[in-house]
Amino acid sequence: MDTWVEDHHQSGFSVQNLPYGIFSAPERDRRIGVAIGRHILDLKVLAEKGTFAALDIDKTTLEEQTLNRYAALGQGVHRKVRAFLQSILRADTSLGRFLRDDAALKKEALVPRQKAEMHLPFDIGDYTDFFTSPYHAQNVGALRPRPLPGTQPPESMYNMPLGYHGRSSSVVVSGTPVRRPRGQFLVNEAPAFGPSQKLDFEVEFAAFIGKGNEHGIAIPVVEAEEHIFGVVLMNDWSARDIQSTEATPLGPFNGKNFCTTISPWVVPLDALELLRTKPVPSHTSLLPYLQEARKDTVYDIPIDVFLELDSQEYHLVQGNTKNILFSFAQMIAHHTAGGCPLKSGDLIGTGTLSGSTPSELGCLLEATRNGSQPLEGSTLDVHKRKISRAWLEDGDVIKFRVGNTGSNGRHVDFGCCEGKVVPQP
Amino acid sequence: MDTWVEDHHQSGFSVQNLPYGIFSAPERDRRIGVAIGRHILDLKVLAEKGTFAALDIDKTTLEEQTLNRYAALGQGVHRKVRAFLQSILRADTSLGRFLRDDAALKKEALVPRQKAEMHLPFDIGDYTDFFTSPYHAQNVGALRPRPLPGTQPPESMYNMPLGYHGRSSSVVVSGTPVRRPRGQFLVNEAPAFGPSQKLDFEVEFAAFIGKGNEHGIAIPVVEAEEHIFGVVLMNDWSARDIQSTEATPLGPFNGKNFCTTISPWVVPLDALELLRTKPVPSHTSLLPYLQEARKDTVYDIPIDVFLELDSQEYHLVQGNTKNILFSFAQMIAHHTAGGCPLKSGDLIGTGTLSGSTPSELGCLLEATRNGSQPLEGSTLDVHKRKISRAWLEDGDVIKFRVGNTGSNGRHVDFGCCEGKVVPQP
Repeated sequence: MDTWVEDHHQSGFSVQNLPYGIFSAPERDRRIGVAIGRHILDLKVLAEKGTFAALDIDKTTLEEQTLNRYAALGQGVHRKVRAFLQSILRADTSLGRFLRDDAALKKEALVPRQKAEMHLPFDIGDYTDFFTSPYHAQNVGALRPRPLPGTQPPESMYNMPLGYHGRSSSVVVSGTPVRRPRGQFLVNEAPAFGPSQKLDFEVEFAAFIGKGNEHGIAIPVVEAEEHIFGVVLMNDWSARDIQSTEATPLGPFNGKNFCTTISPWVVPLDALELLRTKPVPSHTSLLPYLQEARKDTVYDIPIDVFLELDSQEYHLVQGNTKNILFSFAQMIAHHTAGGCPLKSGDLIGTGTLSGSTPSELGCLLEATRNGSQPLEGSTLDVHKRKISRAWLEDGDVIKFRVGNTGSNGRHVDFGCCEGKVVPQP
Repeated sequence: MDTWVEDHHQSGFSVQNLPYGIFSAPERDRRIGVAIGRHILDLKVLAEKGTFAALDIDKTTLEEQTLNRYAALGQGVHRKVRAFLQSILRADTSLGRFLRDDAALKKEALVPRQKAEMHLPFDIGDYTDFFTSPYHAQNVGALRPRPLPGTQPPESMYNMPLGYHGRSSSVVVSGTPVRRPRGQFLVNEAPAFGPSQKLDFEVEFAAFIGKGNEHGIAIPVVEAEEHIFGVVLMNDWSARDIQSTEATPLGPFNGKNFCTTISPWVVPLDALELLRTKPVPSHTSLLPYLQEARKDTVYDIPIDVFLELDSQEYHLVQGNTKNILFSFAQMIAHHTAGGCPLKSGDLIGTGTLSGSTPSELGCLLEATRNGSQPLEGSTLDVHKRKISRAWLEDGDVIKFRVGNTGSNGRHVDFGCCEGKVVPQP
């Protein structure tokens, strides 16, 4: 499939991707758009012109300032809209002419991405983060000073996707500065308060819920994928000194709730079909409520981490969305097993996507062994300039981008998930 | 202060209380009301008639279906409205005549509470639960089979209010049935899945945030009380078997996120001034960001727990809102120390309000020593009928009500915080 929109082949925003986002631009208030090439297709403009009339959907859901109402319509509607958008954007269809050959409409409906400002795609009601990479768990567990019962990676993480509730109010869209948090941590075993000295990133993948479930009614694992609207890259910034001081027995709190950054574009699962693969093998057999029909339930998407400073980009590490024990469908089935209601716009993260090798680590905590062995990054150009970090410094910009997914992956792009560390005022 | 509204003296809803709630009634859609005696003052009716014109507030905030916009106006506005409402409800003011002597308006503006259905007072963005009773921590810690490092009540709970993010989507208003959750727990050390066999209540007190803070900007402890709109009774239902299986290392998740019940009426802190007292003494000195100017920063409010079955009410235990190490102001200062944004309608709980004596326990986990010694409850009438519970059974109704607060406390009522346990379908 190819599209008539200019420059599409120079970006990952092909007609096979078509991710959703919320953007504004000069003379355009916040609205829903779909990325195509170097442009954004303005769905509000199309909806107002009756373009979707034949689809029998509530077009007002496409005229909103967030994706919540549209996402709640369910996967059947989203598939119909996706197929329709592909048909008007493809080079080889007669329907494509409707937009391509109408210069005035084209100008109104296609906005250069460079001119757009991106916003949070959803009003996020609840945000849940899981802990599904066994490599991350093993690496972090090995860093603890003494092997303590109850602090090692627990056996339970193989029996179910372990998760915790995060802070939805501190989720921000890519580009938002990240203020170094103050907090309480131990200095020479005594409580102290000040700016975190162990600021870290965490490479994650996250799903936005589309259609929710009624309070008290679980979502069966075989139906759970239908409740996913799309996926984003996510940086769950962490203050390791604050986190380690507070985390027993209730889990992460202020060490995490100062900021979580997501990519601007929400990619439908249908765009990722060719990247399906199996999750990390487990030595346990799952209880029936977590058993899926198919085996290729996760995705093989490398996520590169860059540190930008003084206009130089240094490659640090790479995570991969396949490094997990459980699929999003299993996370959803587990999350709702007791009746917990998920709502449109709820966000569900995988946890840090570390793999089994030293270059496949998803945070500095692991890569530097709790700051004891600084990580060296280098530019990808011929100069191979170096940079070294134990923890993040003020002024560092951390960027997540999808890496090389091979011949199948050309069309996958979420936009950059980035944030600049700024000091306390 | 006395009011001209009939029957006020037979309830805790005096003119000194004036809590807010969201109600509907025949021919009245959801709206904001204030409880007075056996009635609800319909603020939407008053706002539409221009009653608040002299107060210079955005009256549309009083015509909403939740309290979010009104609460966000800040304490200055709420004090002004409270004083105004007191003046029109008092028996001894000339302003009182405006409503009292207008039979038609009175009929329109005062709705019998019996005819009203109560709803969630806020659209709750984020819900945070703290862990601030040292007695609860000690009791629960003593129940663990072996004293394990990292699982005992940590020293950190004296240095800061330990908290975790709860699930806002599962918070319900009093009266909503509580479905016994299914979940994963260990049976003979092996993972199993089924309805929880250890269903429990937790007696808590919780604050709703009014005016929020900007992302990145902490709320100083001395200003934190101004960000509280009001307080409710809260039952943080818990499935102990699910909770103990999942809680290491990330804290409570499915063991809690199936349901949390709050009382229908949100009481302003100004109504509780006479009940102020000191928190539980601590052996540690606090860091400056948690140091308050005054000492009486918590409230002495006993909360009685009843089990109702077959129209009989059995008294089980009593908690008290004073059994905590940290005030709401300290919880807010700590919560926002790293820049986490609080928004209007966010909910903050104290954690289980157990005290130092066997009758002052806030959950069955403590009162029955993890189910090993069933708790006996008895009716408060002359018959002294008995009931015994290790854990909650299907059909049990758990009710929290404010106990005897002495001569100062007559005017404090939150309404009943209740829920009936219903089985899995």
